[in-house]
Order: sequence, then C-alpha cells, then structure tokens
Amino acid sequence: MSTVTPPADPEADPRVKTVFDDIRATRGSDFVNNVWRWLAFDAALLEETWAGVKAVMATPSALDPKVKEMIYAAVSIANACDYCTHSHLAAARAKGMTPEEQADLFRVVSQAARTNALLNAIRPPIDPAFLA
Amino acid sequence: MSTVTPPADPEADPRVKTVFDDIRATRGSDFVNNVWRWLAFDAALLEETWAGVKAVMATPSALDPKVKEMIYAAVSIANACDYCTHSHLAAARAKGMTPEEQADLFRVVSQAARTNALLNAIRPPIDPAFLA
Amino acid sequence: MSTVTPPADPEADPRVKTVFDDIRATRGSDFVNNVWRWLAFDAALLEETWAGVKAVMATPSALDPKVKEMIYAAVSIANACDYCTHSHLAAARAKGMTPEEQADLFRVVSQAARTNALLNAIRPPIDPAFLA
Amino acid sequence: MSTVTPPADPEADPRVKTVFDDIRATRGSDFVNNVWRWLAFDAALLEETWAGVKAVMATPSALDPKVKEMIYAAVSIANACDYCTHSHLAAARAKGMTPEEQADLFRVVSQAARTNALLNAIRPPIDPAFLA
Amino acid sequence: MSTVTPPADPEADPRVKTVFDDIRATRGSDFVNNVWRWLAFDAALLEETWAGVKAVMATPSALDPKVKEMIYAAVSIANACDYCTHSHLAAARAKGMTPEEQADLFRVVSQAARTNALLNAIRPPIDPAFLA
Amino acid sequence: MSTVTPPADPEADPRVKTVFDDIRATRGSDFVNNVWRWLAFDAALLEETWAGVKAVMATPSALDPKVKEMIYAAVSIANACDYCTHSHLAAARAKGMTPEEQADLFRVVSQAARTNALLNAIRPPIDPAFLA
Repeated sequence: MSTVTPPADPEADPRVKTVFDDIRATRGSDFVNNVWRWLAFDAALLEETWAGVKAVMATPSALDPKVKEMIYAAVSIANACDYCTHSHLAAARAKGMTPEEQADLFRVVSQAARTNALLNAIRPPIDPAFLA
Repeated sequence: MSTVTPPADPEADPRVKTVFDDIRATRGSDFVNNVWRWLAFDAALLEETWAGVKAVMATPSALDPKVKEMIYAAVSIANACDYCTHSHLAAARAKGMTPEEQADLFRVVSQAARTNALLNAIRPPIDPAFLA
Repeated sequence: MSTVTPPADPEADPRVKTVFDDIRATRGSDFVNNVWRWLAFDAALLEETWAGVKAVMATPSALDPKVKEMIYAAVSIANACDYCTHSHLAAARAKGMTPEEQADLFRVVSQAARTNALLNAIRPPIDPAFLA
Repeated sequence: MSTVTPPADPEADPRVKTVFDDIRATRGSDFVNNVWRWLAFDAALLEETWAGVKAVMATPSALDPKVKEMIYAAVSIANACDYCTHSHLAAARAKGMTPEEQADLFRVVSQAARTNALLNAIRPPIDPAFLA
Repeated sequence: MSTVTPPADPEADPRVKTVFDDIRATRGSDFVNNVWRWLAFDAALLEETWAGVKAVMATPSALDPKVKEMIYAAVSIANACDYCTHSHLAAARAKGMTPEEQADLFRVVSQAARTNALLNAIRPPIDPAFLA
Repeated sequence: MSTVTPPADPEADPRVKTVFDDIRATRGSDFVNNVWRWLAFDAALLEETWAGVKAVMATPSALDPKVKEMIYAAVSIANACDYCTHSHLAAARAKGMTPEEQADLFRVVSQAARTNALLNAIRPPIDPAFLA
C-alpha cells in the first residue's frame, strides 16, 4: 500500500513528461517503472531524484555498471527497502549478473551483517594499519 | 571502548592459535588484526566467525575479491559499523580499489540510502517485470 | 500478517475499555485504529504504550502538533516501519500537512539518509563549533 | 577516525573552490565545516553532495527551515550518524530551535523509535482510513 | 514477493537433500519451512546458512534454547525482518514462550528502541564503571 | 561528544532530585549513571524516560531480569547504540550473566543479523504454520 496517489495521467505535466522522456532515452527502453510513476505526484521531487540516480547510476564512472547495481542492491537489503531490493536486483540481472553472482552477493551481504552486529557488540579499537 | 577484554596472550590457547595460524596462512601475512584478537576471548565464537568469513571472503567464488570487499564495506556503512567500515575499505584498497573507485562506492552507497528512504516513504507497488 | 491475535471483543476487558475511552476522548473521535486493537492482547503493554504516546504526542509542548507528527513519520520511514509510516503521515495530514509539505518532508528525509550514509562512510571529525 | 584524507589545501582545486565559495555565499558565513573539507578528496562527490543539500535545505520550500533541520536531525539520530546528528542539531539551533524544542524533538524521536519497534513486532494490518 | 525462484523439486539435488534431512533429524519434525526451500536455489548458500544456524541455535550452549529464540526474535524486530520475526517468535512459542513472556519481550524490545534513539541523540560519555 | 550539556548541579532541581532518589532507591545503590545526569537537562524528558525504563526493567514481570537485560543489550547492538550496549551488558553482568552467556548472546545476535539480511534479500513467503 503506497502513501501517495500517483497521477492518472502523469505526462500531462510537462515537467514529468521531460523526466519520463529522459528516463526512456537514457535506458533505451519504453518501460518506466513504478517508482517514477509514483514520484510524479511532485514534479520537483521527481526531477531531483532522477537527476541523482542518473548522475550516479547511468553515467560512466570508475566502477562497472553491474557492480554498481549490486552495491545498490546490497545497501537496499541492509536498509530493508523492499521495492529497492527488487528493482536493483532486476537491474543487476539486466546488466549481466548471473544466478551464481547473485548467490555470492547474498553470501557477502549476510556475512557482513553478521560481523557488523558482532563488532558493534565487541567494539574493538581500529587498527592503525587500516587508516587511510 | 570495547565491551570485552582481549586475552593478554591469546595464542596460549591452542584453539586460538589454530585460528590465528590459519588467518596468517590464508592471507599470507603475519598481521592479525584486532577483531580476531578481541574475539579470542571466546574460542568457539572466534572459530565460527573466522570459518564464516573465510568461506565467503577468502575462498574463490563467482565474484571478484575486490568487488566482494566493496560490497562488504557498503553493507558495513549502511549498518553504521565503525570497525567493519574501516577494515573492509582497507581490505578493498589492498585488493586494488583505487581512490576513484572508493569515491564511486561512496556515491552509490549514499544514493542508494537516499532512494531507500524515499521508497520506504512512498511504498510503490513492485513492478511485475522485476520478479525473478 | 500480524504476530498476535487481537481479542474479538477487546472492551470486555475493563483495562482495555479505559484506554480505548481515553483514546476516543483525547482525540475527540470514535475511531480507534488497529494498533490499539492489536495491542489489546496484553492490557499492560496497551496501557504503557498509550501513556507514552499520549504524553508525547497528545499533550501541548514546545513543538507544533503537525511538526511533531512529521518528525514521527520521518523516524518511522528511517526505521522501515510500514504501519507507523502510514499512521503518522495520516495524522500529519489530519493536522494540516499539505501535499507540498509532505513532498518536502520526503525530500528532507531522503536527503538526510543520503548524507547519513556518506558520513558513516567518511567519518570526518566533528567540528568544535557544533558542540552544545 | 576518518576513512579518507582531506586535501591539505582543498581550494587549490578550482572545482572545490567554486563549491566552497557557494557554501560561504549561501550561508553568509566564512565557516566551512568538516564534511565539505573531507568531501574535497573527490570533486565530483563534493559537487553532487552540495547540490543535493543546497536544493533541499538552502532553498525556500513548503516547510520552515528550522523544521527541516529538526527533521534532518531526527533522521540522523535514527540512522546512528554521529556527525550528522551534531551538525544538524547545531544548524537547527542556529535557526532558532530552543532548548525546550530540542528536548521535545528528542521525546518524539525516541517515542517513535519505541512504537516503530513495537509495530515491527506486532505488524497489525494498516487501517483503510490511513490510505492517501 | 520473493527475489529468487525456489526449485520445484529441491531434494533432487543431493546436497539439498542432505541439508533437508539434517534439518528434519535435528528438529525431530518433517516440517521444512520456506526459508530452506527458497535457499535451495543455491546449495552452497543453503549449506552455509544451515551450518551457522545449527551451530548457534540447535547445539546446547550457555543459554536456554527458549531465551536464544527470544533474543533472535528481538534482533529480527530491530532489523525489520518480517520473515525472521514470524519464524523466531513461532520457534520461541514452540519452546515454551508464554503469551505473557511474548508481551514482556515486546515491552523490552520497544523500550530499548526508545532509549537507543534517545542516547544516539544525546550521546553521553560511557561511565568507566561499565567497562569490562 | 554529547549534544547536550548536563547541569552542573542536577539535584538542585527538585524534579530531578525526585527521579535520582527513585533511581537510587529502586537499584539499592548510590550510583547514578551518566544517561540520567545528561537527561537532567530537561526534567520532563528525564521523568518520562525513567518511568518507562522502571516500568519495564525494574518491575517484576514474566521474564527473568537477567534475560531482560540481555534482550535489551541485543536490541542496542542491532541499533548500533554505543552507550546502551555498554550499559545493558554491564547491567546483565551485574544480574549474573557469565562470560559464556555473553559470548552466546553475541553468537545469537550476530547469527540473527546474518539471516535477517539474507531473508530481507530473498523474502520468502511466511509459512502459514508460523501464524499466531
């Protein structure tokens, strides 16, 4: 159950249409997924969110796009965000993540959560060798 | 400030010594970092934790070791674990993560946290296209 | 799916009836929402929870009631609590939150989550100027 | 202990200088706090982060600036971000938050955390009356 | 909606069958709950997860099994994990947790969440008397 | 570094003195730990917080006091609350928690964090058998 009502005809708003057109052009696909349709309830929020996601996820940078989607999914799992987990696992699969890589992702994420909790319990001092 | 007192001479306990030897052999280094020295307060907990970390992080698997350390660091940041963030960023650097890749990691992690919060607020329905 | 079974006739228990009557009187409404109906499975837990919520949220204090509901919703989003997010956004709307204010709330919450993650990654020292 | 080393002379980089100048101009103050000095290790990350914070926090919008800083602090507390909690409480104080309002903020944040946990335990169904 | 597709006939894979047989033998029951059926999509992940859970939860140790399940449920609630909350509350009930004890568990968990948030806001220095 | 300044002479405020006296009487000890000294910056917040903690933690209820402190510590670890982790581990030790039980607590907490993350990734359907 969502907390906002998406507009029935979002692209009637030219600001929304501009964002949706850019999403389609950037991705080379006609599919505009629900997060953007729901965000269309507020054009400024839609614009800012898409600008941020595009800058980080759809612009060439130091890391491989598939790896970036896997990191995004890992954080989404840690933050218990249902929609984000589904959408970024799907994006990683679309960028070539294999079932074996997805299983390995889950192994690392869950192993990290385990030692995160353990070290938040024990709280050892940080080794000087780890400093930047 | 840690919540447990590490033993003064951890390797006097043969179970601890076995784990420390395996850490050194697996990593090809004499350096045993603080998490293992503090965990030595309980040999069973030390053994289980090292077995889990070794299976996931020090055993060849579908993902590249550097990528695995970056995913581990991403989860540690999301879970606000200070020690884990430092140690796994250091491990990723030791496996070749460049400053540009670290900056990109931080961009993805923080962008993910932003949309995680936004979608935990809006809660749009999950697109059927995202299902496995 | 809930983890407890709410009593079929909660107000048959006089302790529950007293709380429900106070909820209705405090709010000036006959509507008792599900959280209270489910908490009625344990009268002491119901009493303590209502006493805490009433003291903080239904008693005049330094902050405006609408602002308090928005802060409550912000924390609920950060904690990934589905029911709480819905109920406190609804309460904020009932106290006058406009759609523009709700969109602004979502902008602040998601922007905060982004820099929270970034600074949990970078961990800069706290400026002395910020100390109380 | 931070995970990156801030540049010794950040404004030697013209991209960093442009951001710092805009921070000073936007805030009408010469004080540039540590988060920006540390982020200067990567100009692109600095630019994106400041652009996001400026758009949401330093641009007039539906909500009062003091309220926005309090919401930001509330989310930072929920996310256990030490630096963010200090900096946004300081910003809220600079925008007029009184000690009584800060105490009220803490009351709401901690009361919300309590019922968030309780309802993540009980998981009652969401009342239809709460839907947007 | 799950993110992986469980195999139609999981026990056709002998590694999966070995784990399922051990689950049934360890628990003295033919019931294999969904988490294991879904994890069967990757035999190594299934084996590691069961090994960890069995070592900690199904092996005699310092704490009473019912108490361990209640602690497990408490952490699951704090981490907003829906499946884990249901499954470990059910396990605690199967090990003798009474309705009064479950209500008391919820009281402690929610009270802890409240002061956790409050002290993440206030951040008082840790008393020397608390050190190990 | 704390975000509020504790009063130099907290018990000069009679409302604070009443709470401190009740803390000492309830615990049978002259030691008033820092959380209460810092909370004394706002008498109402101090009163509410102590009332909640006393009702749940210092009043006989279905669960054993030592078990309650261990559950409190488990939640504090999951929420990354440094002060709370230290204070409730200390309280559990004062109520009889042995080093072996503390190690077992850490095993359960970290194992739970692991499967919490894994099941927030996989999201299997909840077994009907688990329903209350």
